[in-house]
Order: sequence, then structure tokens, then C-alpha cells
Amino acid sequence: MGARGMFAPSAGYDRALTIFSPDGRLYQVEYAIETVRRGTLAVGARAVDGVVLFAEERLRKLQDVSLSQKLFQVDDHVGAVAAGYVPDARVLIDNARVTAQNHRILYDEPITVETLAKRLGDLAQQYTQYAGVRPFGVSLVLAGVDRNGPSVFTTDPSGTYLGYSAIAIGGGSDQLNEYFEANYSESMSMDDAILMILRGASRTEEHKVLDPRSVKMAVIDVKTKRMRRLGIDEITSYLEKAKEQQ
Amino acid sequence: MGARGMFAPSAGYDRALTIFSPDGRLYQVEYAIETVRRGTLAVGARAVDGVVLFAEERLRKLQDVSLSQKLFQVDDHVGAVAAGYVPDARVLIDNARVTAQNHRILYDEPITVETLAKRLGDLAQQYTQYAGVRPFGVSLVLAGVDRNGPSVFTTDPSGTYLGYSAIAIGGGSDQLNEYFEANYSESMSMDDAILMILRGASRTEEHKVLDPRSVKMAVIDVKTKRMRRLGIDEITSYLEKAKEQQ
Amino acid sequence: MGARGMFAPSAGYDRALTIFSPDGRLYQVEYAIETVRRGTLAVGARAVDGVVLFAEERLRKLQDVSLSQKLFQVDDHVGAVAAGYVPDARVLIDNARVTAQNHRILYDEPITVETLAKRLGDLAQQYTQYAGVRPFGVSLVLAGVDRNGPSVFTTDPSGTYLGYSAIAIGGGSDQLNEYFEANYSESMSMDDAILMILRGASRTEEHKVLDPRSVKMAVIDVKTKRMRRLGIDEITSYLEKAKEQQ
Amino acid sequence: MGARGMFAPSAGYDRALTIFSPDGRLYQVEYAIETVRRGTLAVGARAVDGVVLFAEERLRKLQDVSLSQKLFQVDDHVGAVAAGYVPDARVLIDNARVTAQNHRILYDEPITVETLAKRLGDLAQQYTQYAGVRPFGVSLVLAGVDRNGPSVFTTDPSGTYLGYSAIAIGGGSDQLNEYFEANYSESMSMDDAILMILRGASRTEEHKVLDPRSVKMAVIDVKTKRMRRLGIDEITSYLEKAKEQQ
Amino acid sequence: MGARGMFAPSAGYDRALTIFSPDGRLYQVEYAIETVRRGTLAVGARAVDGVVLFAEERLRKLQDVSLSQKLFQVDDHVGAVAAGYVPDARVLIDNARVTAQNHRILYDEPITVETLAKRLGDLAQQYTQYAGVRPFGVSLVLAGVDRNGPSVFTTDPSGTYLGYSAIAIGGGSDQLNEYFEANYSESMSMDDAILMILRGASRTEEHKVLDPRSVKMAVIDVKTKRMRRLGIDEITSYLEKAKEQQ
Amino acid sequence: MGARGMFAPSAGYDRALTIFSPDGRLYQVEYAIETVRRGTLAVGARAVDGVVLFAEERLRKLQDVSLSQKLFQVDDHVGAVAAGYVPDARVLIDNARVTAQNHRILYDEPITVETLAKRLGDLAQQYTQYAGVRPFGVSLVLAGVDRNGPSVFTTDPSGTYLGYSAIAIGGGSDQLNEYFEANYSESMSMDDAILMILRGASRTEEHKVLDPRSVKMAVIDVKTKRMRRLGIDEITSYLEKAKEQQ
Amino acid sequence: MGARGMFAPSAGYDRALTIFSPDGRLYQVEYAIETVRRGTLAVGARAVDGVVLFAEERLRKLQDVSLSQKLFQVDDHVGAVAAGYVPDARVLIDNARVTAQNHRILYDEPITVETLAKRLGDLAQQYTQYAGVRPFGVSLVLAGVDRNGPSVFTTDPSGTYLGYSAIAIGGGSDQLNEYFEANYSESMSMDDAILMILRGASRTEEHKVLDPRSVKMAVIDVKTKRMRRLGIDEITSYLEKAKEQQ
Repeated sequence: MGARGMFAPSAGYDRALTIFSPDGRLYQVEYAIETVRRGTLAVGARAVDGVVLFAEERLRKLQDVSLSQKLFQVDDHVGAVAAGYVPDARVLIDNARVTAQNHRILYDEPITVETLAKRLGDLAQQYTQYAGVRPFGVSLVLAGVDRNGPSVFTTDPSGTYLGYSAIAIGGGSDQLNEYFEANYSESMSMDDAILMILRGASRTEEHKVLDPRSVKMAVIDVKTKRMRRLGIDEITSYLEKAKEQQ
Repeated sequence: MGARGMFAPSAGYDRALTIFSPDGRLYQVEYAIETVRRGTLAVGARAVDGVVLFAEERLRKLQDVSLSQKLFQVDDHVGAVAAGYVPDARVLIDNARVTAQNHRILYDEPITVETLAKRLGDLAQQYTQYAGVRPFGVSLVLAGVDRNGPSVFTTDPSGTYLGYSAIAIGGGSDQLNEYFEANYSESMSMDDAILMILRGASRTEEHKVLDPRSVKMAVIDVKTKRMRRLGIDEITSYLEKAKEQQ
Repeated sequence: MGARGMFAPSAGYDRALTIFSPDGRLYQVEYAIETVRRGTLAVGARAVDGVVLFAEERLRKLQDVSLSQKLFQVDDHVGAVAAGYVPDARVLIDNARVTAQNHRILYDEPITVETLAKRLGDLAQQYTQYAGVRPFGVSLVLAGVDRNGPSVFTTDPSGTYLGYSAIAIGGGSDQLNEYFEANYSESMSMDDAILMILRGASRTEEHKVLDPRSVKMAVIDVKTKRMRRLGIDEITSYLEKAKEQQ
Repeated sequence: MGARGMFAPSAGYDRALTIFSPDGRLYQVEYAIETVRRGTLAVGARAVDGVVLFAEERLRKLQDVSLSQKLFQVDDHVGAVAAGYVPDARVLIDNARVTAQNHRILYDEPITVETLAKRLGDLAQQYTQYAGVRPFGVSLVLAGVDRNGPSVFTTDPSGTYLGYSAIAIGGGSDQLNEYFEANYSESMSMDDAILMILRGASRTEEHKVLDPRSVKMAVIDVKTKRMRRLGIDEITSYLEKAKEQQ
Repeated sequence: MGARGMFAPSAGYDRALTIFSPDGRLYQVEYAIETVRRGTLAVGARAVDGVVLFAEERLRKLQDVSLSQKLFQVDDHVGAVAAGYVPDARVLIDNARVTAQNHRILYDEPITVETLAKRLGDLAQQYTQYAGVRPFGVSLVLAGVDRNGPSVFTTDPSGTYLGYSAIAIGGGSDQLNEYFEANYSESMSMDDAILMILRGASRTEEHKVLDPRSVKMAVIDVKTKRMRRLGIDEITSYLEKAKEQQ
Repeated sequence: MGARGMFAPSAGYDRALTIFSPDGRLYQVEYAIETVRRGTLAVGARAVDGVVLFAEERLRKLQDVSLSQKLFQVDDHVGAVAAGYVPDARVLIDNARVTAQNHRILYDEPITVETLAKRLGDLAQQYTQYAGVRPFGVSLVLAGVDRNGPSVFTTDPSGTYLGYSAIAIGGGSDQLNEYFEANYSESMSMDDAILMILRGASRTEEHKVLDPRSVKMAVIDVKTKRMRRLGIDEITSYLEKAKEQQ
Repeated sequence: MGARGMFAPSAGYDRALTIFSPDGRLYQVEYAIETVRRGTLAVGARAVDGVVLFAEERLRKLQDVSLSQKLFQVDDHVGAVAAGYVPDARVLIDNARVTAQNHRILYDEPITVETLAKRLGDLAQQYTQYAGVRPFGVSLVLAGVDRNGPSVFTTDPSGTYLGYSAIAIGGGSDQLNEYFEANYSESMSMDDAILMILRGASRTEEHKVLDPRSVKMAVIDVKTKRMRRLGIDEITSYLEKAKEQQ
């Protein structure tokens, strides 16, 4: 589609159907992952007593703060945060919700987080192999408490899904993941994990001072196995504690 | 599709199927949003006693003033205003009307504005991911009074939907939204909101003197939960009041 | 589709599927509207006692004058005139006829002109959003007498439909609409409207001397609510009266 | 596709799906009409006592003269001649034959020539609006005697159909139509019409001396309402008379 | 599909869907006809006592001489020879065989050669008007003895079918047809026709000395109405006689 | 697609749908035949007492020698060898096996080799005429003993099938076929044919010294009409004999 | 699509539908194989007492080590390792699992490894011949113990499947396969094979020091015919032994 000059590194291998470039890359998938990188920060972490979800949402002044576009409840015991193209995230989340409901009906037990992540990964893979669609421009962190205990998984536009103790996706995630690798411990409580995330996020360049209005958090503890969104007061209080620990 | 020169910033990533550019953008979606920016002004605002909808329609002299192309009733309790490519708006509005009717039949209660906004957002998202269609070239402000009280939501060509206290879309909306952020108060009445919108709109460059014939307004109050279009006399009288307050 | 040089203003955004250009325009729709501008003149006007339809048809000498390609009866009470690509007009008119018949069967009353115009507008919109088709290259003026009294509506290739007191489409319509805006009055009779149209049309450059053989006219009066085509004698007589008034 | 140089006047608007050019033209339709112009001559004329059909067919020496590729019987009372891409003509004729048969079965009366012409025009229109096909590269003259008396209609690749007293299509038709406009009279007999056609055709540059082997003619008179092909002897005799009158 | 330089005469009008060029030509069809011209020679001729079919097949030394790729039996009373892309010929022949069989079952009489030729022409036409296929790259001569007596027809990639007394297609056919036009007589016997074909073919540049192994011939006489392939001895003997007559 | 430089001989006629070039060639088919030429050697030969199949397979040291990718059993009495893109060969062979089985069930007798070759040729032809597929990149030699005695046929990517006494396909086949033409005799025994093939293959440049591990052979004799693969010892012994005869 | 400069070796033959280049290559398949080469190392080996599978997985520090993305159980008696685009591998593995289950149900016995490899090869082939999909970007080693004893097979993006005694795929596989060819013996035990793989892998440049956390291994012994994954302790102990033997 047009003479794009001889300096274009991908030379047209990145159009229409997702196809291979001579060096074996799928450019449309890599560009979709770039969409994720341009997104806001999203985090999931596993603690001994549950899991923690964190999403950054930059709101305009008159925007409704009670609604979240990037933190979702998938089932009683599973939540998710998204980074990238948010309307695509809703497609995946709606699919995950139906999958989780069907699992309860079919097997009479809650779905595992890993099964959900595989399912969304398989869906994403199809959007990289068939013509007439583009890949999903979003990565998710799915976190929940299932029969294996607290679990955290990611999915990305390529269809890859992976399990983590703690993982950040989206803008600034590289810095934050390094911080997690230095500070995470398997024996952390959810409280510790929340503070670690907030301290870490406050160290990234774009997030020096986190605004409680722009932070969405949720926890799922091993006792109730039910997702609970943190109120703005709780978040404010955690942010203050995190600041003291800095 | 042709050598478009080396200065073309998007280099072909903006054709046919909506696909990702190397920097992770969906150009067709961004161009559709540009269509919205080229449209006329549309506004929705939440007051303590109801919601207010405002749409600008530039009419030719012999055009029928009683018909509105940009202000729609969706259900008894929900209205909408559009900015951008109006024939596309009608597709979304028709879809919203059917959705609202089905909701009443299925659940025996009026649909919430948020549910409608999500539904239209999901529809718009599909037109950004599949081949053989173009995105919708229109944004909507949906406003109504539902079980959560007065509610105002926007949808855009990307499929994003967001809740606001007061929001303008279309040509001149940036200026007007800044004005809202400086002047909006959660304790405003519908009357206050109407005057704020008219004062604000009159300050934008294109709208210095608003012509009552080019203004369409509707309100839905919390008591009746029924949309009422303002007559040209009411609009004229509000415009005069707004002028005095200037 | 070829290097079309760096001076091509639309740079390929006007091919195949109707898609957005960077400045948010739908070129294929604009080109289809250009087809309308290249067409012959067509007019509809609302009077107190009915509606008037006018179409110009340039005939070859041996062409059958009794057949009209641009003036159509849609239902007893509704007629239409077309400007642009006439074979496309027939598709819309056939659709309108079926819609009007179905309406009579379903609701046991004649369809309104506005409902017909919306229906054709919705059809036209679909031909601007889906791949594998081109937009309709035609605009229509629909006029009739329904439960709202005399009504005149236009549809265009974009899917827009609007109500007017008097409106011209096609070649020379800009000049003629200005003339209408200066001379139209809501209290006009059909006779007045016919003369206004003929006087106005005779003032446009291409139509200085109107040939009765090239003029098709019809009226629908509020009493009979039935479309009646004017004979060549009537048209000749009106043309003479219009000339005297000049 | 591809860089076709800056001198290409249509700049790619004439490919694949029939789409609009910036000046509102449908190039593929215009090129199909060019195919008609490159074809041989075909004529239809209306007389007081019937209709006349004429087609030129240039035959190789050993070609079978008894078969006609360009003169067709559609129904007892309707015939047709074609100019342009003959295999396409057969598709239209086969369609016309089925339409005429179905009409007899459904309404128990012969179809009118105008209804047939509209039907073929509608079919041709579809081949100009949908992807995956090309327009028909052929024009037809349909002539017959129906309840309206003798009738002559044309269809072309755009889907336009028109009624005429006498009309020529194909190579040399412009000259011949001018001749008809100067010489045709509504009171002509079929004999007069045949001679007018042959005299006129003999004046065009390519046809100075018409070879009886290359002429196919048929008549449908108002009494029998049945198409009759002229034998080579009749044609030879008419040609001689026409020569004398020259 | 690439900058093909400014010297390409067809400028892209010859790709994908068969579409019209500005001068009203269908290039893909013309190129398919070029495939026929690149093929070997094939001939059919009508005699008073039957029809004759001739096909040239250039064989490698160890190739099986008893099998013919270019001379086919279609039904008892009809045979065919092909020039061009032979695998395409088989598709047409298989279609012709089924058509002939169905005709016998439906009408209880043998199909005419003309009906078969029209059927294959209609099939070929479809491959020139719809996307997703290419035209057939083959021409056929169909010859047989039916209720009209001996008949010879050709079909080509455009869908044209024509009747002939004697006709050659494929490489060298122009020269051979000129020879036929000078030497053919309607009162010829099959023997005369065979010798005329062999003498004529031996005069073309590529065929100065015809090798009996490279010649396939068949006859259908009016008495038996059954196709009979000539053996290599018969062919050798005819070749010798033809040589003597030279 | 795109500007491929002015030296590209085929100028884009070789993409997507297999279409004709101006000189009447189908490039995609010719490129597929090039794939065959890049393949390893495969041979079939007819003897008085049966048929012989030979395929070269270059194996890595740890590769399983007992499995063959290029020598297939189609039915009891028919085998095949392939040259070109082997995964495509499996599609054809699977098709041939089902065809042979169905033939036994339907007609209660073994299929002839020629019928199988025609069937595979017809399948290959379809992959050259329809969009959305590429031609098969493989040629086959089918050999067997059927009611006509020993038979050897080839199929290629164009859909052509031909019968031979002895034929080689794939890399080095030109040289080998010349050798066969000089040395083959219709009175050869299978033993003679095997030795002729091995002597001939050993004379081609790439195969000076044939490695028994890289040779697959099978025979079908007229008595048993059953395919038998030669063991590595038999092959080694034949290779030695062939060397002595050199 | 687009002027990619005159130095591009494949000149556009590597886009959209997988098509042949003039030299008979399928570039998209070759690029997909390049994706495999960019992948991590995967190995399968046959021993007298069973088979061994090895996959390298590079994990981030907080990634869940208990989950494997590249080592899969297909059935009780068959496992697989993947190199290349892992989300594609899951599609093949899911297909293999269903195939194996269906085989047990249909034939009441475990599927052979070869049958599974052929099935996955046939699936992969289809993704190279039809439009609207890209080839699979992954190769697999399938290993198991079936009625033929220990078996090791590979499949690749072209659809080729081959049997091996020991085989490595992915990054560094060339070096490793050379090592196997020098060191493998048919009489090896699984223990020997494991040590050979680890010694060999440690000699490749990227893997000088293998990290037990990045190694996944499984064995299937001939007695149990059941796949067993090696624990991290076992792997650590084997790595130490391998180091001693170096």
C-alpha cells in the first residue's frame, strides 16, 4: 500500500492479514503490544492471604470516578486489570465472564485463573492467524483465588499467557517489574503487596505523586474468595503509608 | 495503494481493515474521531433535579425547524445528542432504542444509561476490529434518569464509554469542557446547567451569538423521568438570561 | 492502485471500502454527491394546498416523451424526483414503494413522507459503511400529503435526510435555492409554487428558456391526496405565465 | 495497482469495484459503454404497423450465415438486437426470456417491452454497485408489439433504459441517429422504416456498401404480434430499393 | 501490484477481476485467447457425409501415443478438439458430457452441437464476469452429426460461439483458415476434407512435415452418427495421399 | 505488490489469483513447476512383467530410514513417487487413496492408473483457476498394473496428466529422460528397468554415487498386482549390478 | 504493497496468500520456519527403554516455574516440545489431544506417534495453501512409546513430518544436531540420552551454563508407557552429572 520509502524497517510485512516477515516476526502482533506499552499501568500480585489488583486510570475533572474502565470483576473469585486499548479489553472480559459462568454450570465449581488465562490466550491467538481481523490491542492481568490458592496470570496480544508472583503491564511496567524483582517476597501479605505496588509505582517517572482519584485497586482474600474494590479512602490511606515507607 | 510520498505520516497503516501502526495506533479510529471534531457541538450535563441535553444544528433558511437530526429520544427516560457523521448516529440510536425496549420486556424495568452506553460502545468496538466495515464516525452523549439518578455518558468511535457530570463533544468542545471544569457544580439545578451550557457555548469562537433556531435542547427531570424537548420560546428566553449573566 | 503523484489531495483514501481520510472525511460519499451535482435539476415545494414536484429531463429528439426517468410515483399520496445516477434512483424508489405498501398492510394507513425519507436514508447509510458496495449516486426529493399535511424531504448519498419548505437538488440547485429563500412564502398555493419554481429555474444559466418537453411536473393536493402528473399543455401554459411574471 | 504514471487520467478510480471518481463518474460503466461503441451497429424502429430490428454481423467467409449472434427472439412478440460484448448479451437475453415466460404464466398476458427493459436495466444496475462483478459490456434494443402498440426500448451498461421511436446503438450509431432525427416520421410503415435504416446505415463510413450476408433483420407486425426474421432474399431486395432511393 | 513502468500498455486493467480498460477491452480475456494462440493446432470441418476433427499433439519419445489430450469424444455423435491450456479443456469437456447425457435423459434425443456450444459459451462467459476465477485458457472445436446434419462450432475464452463450415484454432490457424477459405467446398466428402486439412496444415511453417504420431483425427459420418478415431495407419496413408496432391 | 523495479519480467501477473499474463502464461503454475524442478528425483517405468517406482530421499544421519516421504502406496495395485513440495503430495495421495477405495466399492474392481491420474489432474486444475488457493507444488508419477496391464502416468501442477513408458521428474530429470529415450525398450523386464534407472541416475551430476540409504524403490508385478517395496539389501545389490554394467 | 526497494530479494512473493516465487519457493513458509529458528531449543530422543523430551524456557524472576509453555502432554503415552511461536503450538497440541482421544474411542487403542505427526503435518499444510490464514509459526517434536516402541517425530510449518532417533529444533539446533550425530547410539538408555542432550546443549554458545529453572524435561518409558515430568531436583542432578562428563 504505497511506496513508504526504503527506510521503513518492516517493509509492508505488517499489513492486512498478520503475516510473517523475513526474520520470522509478526509485526501486527508487535504493534498491538506497542499499544499495550502506550497504555496506563496495570498490576497484579500474589500474597499469602490473597491477590491484589491495581490499575491506573487518568480521569478528566468532571469524569465519573465511581466507574472503572480498566479494573473488572470476572467472577466472584477472579478480577482483572487491563493495559492498552480498553474497548478490546471489554471483549475479552465479557468472554471471560461467560466462560467462568459456563464452567460453574458445567462442573459445579469455580474456574481456575489459569484456565481462564489459557482460554483468553487461545482467543487472542486466533486474531493473529486469520484474515479479516486485527489482533487485540490489550494485555490483561487476571488474578484470583482458586483451588490452587492465590493465582496471577497475564495474557497479551500474541496469545501468550504466563503465571507470575507479581507483574506489571502497560506504561512504566519495565521499571516497576525490576522493582518487584528486587522487593517481592513469597511470604508477603496483601497489605505488604499493596504497599510494594504503590511504592514501586511512585518511583516511576510518570507516577511520582499518585493521585488517589486515578488509582483503582481490588483484593481477593483466601478466606472469602470474593473480590472487593478498595474505596478512595482506603487507597488514600495506603498511599500515605507507602509515602512514609519511601 | 500508491506511492503517497515519504512525508505521509501514517504510511498506509490507515487503510482497509483497521490495523495497528508501528506506534500502536489505530488510524481509522483516530480519523473517525476527527469526523466528530469536525461536527457541530453537542452537550450533556447532570443536575440535582435531572439531566440536560444540548445540540447545535445549523439549518438552511427553508429547512424544517421542527425536526431534529442530532437530538434523539432513546426511551422515555433517556435522550441522546450526536456530533459527527449524523447518518451513523441514527444506526446507533436505532440500536439503542431496540436495546432499551428489549430490556423493558425482559426485565420489566427501564434500562440504565450506563448499560446503554456499554452496549453502544461494544457495537462501535466491533467496527474497529473486523474487516469489511469502517468505524462509526460519530460520538454520542447519552443522558437520562435511571435507578442511579441522573446520568450522563459518552460513546466514541473507538468503543470507549465514560461517565461525566458535564461533557461537550464535537466542534469547540475543548473550550467548552474547560469552561465546564471551571464552572460546574454538583449542586446545580437543571436551570443552572442550561444557563452554564449556553453561556459557555456563547464564549466559543464559532458560537458568539447563538441563534435559537440552531439550538435543540431537552431535559429529563428526576420526578417524571420523561424527556421533554424545549420549545423555541423557552430556548430564546434561556438565551436571553444567559446573555444577561455574561 | 498506483502512484497518483504527490498532488492528489485525497491520497488514496477514496477507494474500495468507503473509509475515513485523516481529516475525517468519507471521500466516496463526497464523490457520489458530486454525481448528484452533475445531474439535472429536481425540485420539491410545499404549498398550503398541496405539494409540487419538478424534474428536468433532457430528451433526444426521437425519445419517448411520455415516459419519465426522474419523476416517480411512490404511493398514491407520495411522489419523488431524482438528481444524479438515475439507475440508482430506481433501486431506492422500488424500495420506497415496497416500504409504503407494507406500511399500508401493517398499519392500515398511508406512510408519512418523513418515515419514507428516514427509511431511504438508513438504506443509503449502509452503502457507506460496508465493503463490497459503493454509495448510491443519487439524491431524491420526496413530497406528499400525509397526516402531517404537505411534506417535502430530501435524501442524499450520505444517508442524511432533511425536511424543507422548498428545495432544489442537482445541477444549478445552489442558484435556485437562493431564489427560493428570497421568494418562498409559507402561504403560497401550489399554483404560486409552480410559478416560483419555473421562474427560478428559468433564471439559472443552463435553463434560460425551459422547453416544455424537458419538464416533468406533478402535484399532490391536500383534498385528494393523490399524485397527478401535469400534461405538456399544462406545463406549457405555466411556463408562459411564469414568463409573463418575469 | 502500481505506479501507472502521472498521465493516467482516471488515476485508478476505474478498478475492481465500480467506484466514484472525484468528479462523480463511474469509470467502469463508462468503459463498458466504450465496449458498446466498439461493437457493430444495431437498430430498432417503431412504425405504425409494427417494429423493425436490424443488426450488423461481420462474418468470416466460412462462417454459418443462418445463425445470428446479435439478433434474438425474446418472446413471440418481442425481439432484441445487441451491440458490444456478445456473450454478455446472451446472459441478458436468457434473463429476458425467463422473465417473459414467467409473466405469461403469472398474469396470463404477454409482458410489455417497457417492463422487460426496466427488468434488464435493474439487473445491469446491480452489476455497477456490487463488488465481485464487472458491468455488462453490452447495450440492447428491445422492440415488440404489446398492449401499448409498437414499442422500442434501449438498455445500457449503466442500467439506464429509455423509449425511442427509432434508435441506433454501437459503432456508427451517432451518425445514424442524426440521420433518423432528420428522416423519421411517426406515420412511417415498417417498409419505410426498413428502407430508412438501410439508407442511413449505408451513409455511415464503415457501411458504405452493405453486404446482405452481414445484415440480420426482423419485424413484428401489429396484426400477428409475432416476430419474423427476414430472409437473405428479402434483405437483398430491400438493399436494392434503398440504393435506388439514395 | 507494483510499478510496472510507464510503458506497460494495459496499465493494470488486466488483473484480478476481469474488468474493462478505458478502450472497452477485457484484457484477461484477450490474454486467455493468447494462450489459445500459443497452443497447438486444432481443426473441425463439415462434409456432405459427416464431420472431421483434427488435433496436433506433440509427444515425447516415450510418451503413450494411444492416449489423446486434445481430441475428445463428448457423446456418440459429437467430438471435440482443443487448443490452449489443456487441463481447462477437460473441465469444459466434462461439462459437455454431462450436458449431453442429461439432454438424452430429459428429451430422449441426442443434443445438437449448437446447444452444446451455447452451453459451453455461457459457462465461459461467467468466468469473465465474476471475481475469484480466471477465464478458461482454451478454445474448442465441437463437431458432430445431429438432426440438422453435420455441424461444426467453436467456443472461445470470451464465451463467444460460432458455426463454421471449416475452422482451425490454435498456433498457425490464421494461415490454415486462409487456406480453407480458398479451398473449401460445401460439396466436399469427409475424405476430401481430411486431405484438405492435412495439405493445409503441411503448408504452415511449423508443420512442414507432419509426423503421424503427432496427429489425432476422428470422423463422425451421417449414417452411423458415431464418432470413430482414425488409427495411425489410416493417418499415415492420408498423409501420403495429401503429400502426393501437394 | 509494490514497485518491484523495471526489470521484473513478469510484472505482477504472477500474484494472488493465478491469472494470465499478456503472453498467455499462468506464472503461478510455472513457478509451481519450478518447485518440482527443485525437488529430488522420482521415476516410474513400465516393463513387460510389471512397473518400477524410484524415489530419491536425502536423509539426515539420525533420520528414520524405514519411513518414506516420497514413495507412497495408493492401492494394492498402484504406487506413486513425488517430486517437489512433499506436504502437497500427501494431499494428492490421500485423495487418490479415497478415490481408489470408492472405485472398488462402487464398481467392484480396481481403478485404472489412468483414471487416478485424470482425477488428480482435475483436482490440480481447480487450484489454478480459483482464487484463495495456490497450485499444488508437486508432480507425481503414478504406476501400477491394472486391466490394461502395466501403466505409468504423471500429473503436474497445471493439471496435465500424460502416459509414459518411462519417465523421470524432479531435479536432474531432463538428463535422465534423455538417457531413457536412448536406452528404454518395450521388451524390458522389471529387472532391466531397475538397472536402467540406477545406471541413468548415477550418470546425473548430483547422483554420481547413489547411497542405498537415499534410494526408495517399489515394484508391482503383473502376476500379484501388488506393490512391494524393495529392502535396503535388494537396493544395494541392484546398485552394485548397475555399477558393474556402467 | 509498497515500494520496498530494488534490493528486496523476494520482491513481494511473500505476502497475503502463500504463493510461489519465480524460483518455486513459498516465502511465508520459509519465514515461519525462521520464527522457529528464533525460538528456544527443543529436543526429543529415542532410547532403548523409552523417549526423552527437553525444552528450554527462559523465565523472568517472578514467573511461575511450575507451569510449562513449551513442554506438553498429548496423551498418556505421548508428549511434545515446541520451538517458535508458542500460542500457535497450543493450537496444534489441542488438535493432537482431541485426535488422540478420538483414536482411543474409535479404535480402542492408543494412537501411534507417527499418525499424530502426519495429522499435524496435514493441518499445517492446509495453512500454506489457502488464503485468509498464515502458516503456523512453530515446529514440534512429538515423542512417545506406542506399538512400534519408542518413537520420535517432528512437524514443521511446511507440513513436513519426519522420524528421528534424536533431533533438536529451534535456536542452536544445528550445533546440537551435529553433536547428536557424533554421539548418539541406538543402544542408549534414557539416562544416557538425557545426559547426551544436556552435555550437547551446554556446548552451544547461548547455553554454556544451563539454569535448572530454565529446563523442562519429561520421559516416557517402555514399561509404563506414561509420560513423567522430571522435577527440578532431578534436572539439577542430571545437569551436575552432565557437567562432570564434559
